[in-house]
Amino acid sequence: MTPRGRRPGGEDTRAHIVEVARTEFAAHGYDRTSLRGVARAAGVDPALVHHYFDGKTDLFTAAMTLPIRPAEIVARVTAAEPGQVGASVVRTFLTMWDEPSRHERMLAVVRSAMSDEPAARMLREFLDQAVAGPIAEFYAPEGERNAVGASLTAATLTGIAIGRYLVRFEGLPDASVEELIERVGPAIQGYLGPRRPHAEADQG
Amino acid sequence: MTPRGRRPGGEDTRAHIVEVARTEFAAHGYDRTSLRGVARAAGVDPALVHHYFDGKTDLFTAAMTLPIRPAEIVARVTAAEPGQVGASVVRTFLTMWDEPSRHERMLAVVRSAMSDEPAARMLREFLDQAVAGPIAEFYAPEGERNAVGASLTAATLTGIAIGRYLVRFEGLPDASVEELIERVGPAIQGYLGPRRPHAEADQG
Repeated sequence: MTPRGRRPGGEDTRAHIVEVARTEFAAHGYDRTSLRGVARAAGVDPALVHHYFDGKTDLFTAAMTLPIRPAEIVARVTAAEPGQVGASVVRTFLTMWDEPSRHERMLAVVRSAMSDEPAARMLREFLDQAVAGPIAEFYAPEGERNAVGASLTAATLTGIAIGRYLVRFEGLPDASVEELIERVGPAIQGYLGPRRPHAEADQG
Repeated sequence: MTPRGRRPGGEDTRAHIVEVARTEFAAHGYDRTSLRGVARAAGVDPALVHHYFDGKTDLFTAAMTLPIRPAEIVARVTAAEPGQVGASVVRTFLTMWDEPSRHERMLAVVRSAMSDEPAARMLREFLDQAVAGPIAEFYAPEGERNAVGASLTAATLTGIAIGRYLVRFEGLPDASVEELIERVGPAIQGYLGPRRPHAEADQG
């Protein structure tokens, strides 16, 4: 991370702006973050932000893009025992959240998604379409997609992130990852597995 | 609803302001709604809003308070067959959301809760503490509260509302209430029922 106040040149400057933008979006959400505010926090001229980024959506996308390839998550989960799909999804998701480099930007996407379309689209495209969707389709009967199961998975994971990190429902901030896997895994298994919820998932 | 532009007196004025505030909070969220903006939309002097309400949190609380007694929901759910607790919770929740008089303010609370403490507190107090909490405790072993199960229920319901109405994960906006009950009911049953998820729930 570039120290605050330093004004490096070229790619360094761009990376520095992205880094500062990530913090600003995470703290204030999409709507309440301005290019001017990011420039100020980064110690650079606003014109420089406009030089590197084609507007706020562009900066947001650059700041929020996760250093994760959805296809890798899908490959890892679908390599698990068919009966462990739910547990594997919950473990992957909670591990991602708990990693400091990802936590802030995931928080910013979720917080912003409630009122701002660029963040909502990012959440839909990443969680529902690129991760939960292919997993659901992998286990769905031939020719079916189980879009409802994929979206229920995305909704559950979003709800847990909100309950654990943002709204802080009483039992969630201090629950261990293992307890959450044990309790949420079967629910996700029901959504992503064969259509009849909680049937034995050994036909994957 | 009072027609826009009319300026009624006394309790009528207060009710009119509350009605307009509900629409404003629902459309813009807590943070981006101002007392001045509400006054403008209601066609009244800002001083009148300040006369009736002790600040924005007070107006928000008045506008968002649901015409629902949590104790009635708890009583109805715990009167269901022990094996139908999950289905009953999901049905109650989706029915509440689908009622026009409640939809807008529930949307406003959820949307605002991501960044604003008054709305977050309202969501915690209503969904987690007043509804899911007592139901979880009712079915928990003697002397236990199952706070994690209650909060997972609140988180799931929040996530589904977001996925169905706000972010619009592909499979949720058009899913029927019956399909959602069938698929989410077992998950909630696992969270609220006895500690071992998806065990036979006949010991309630």
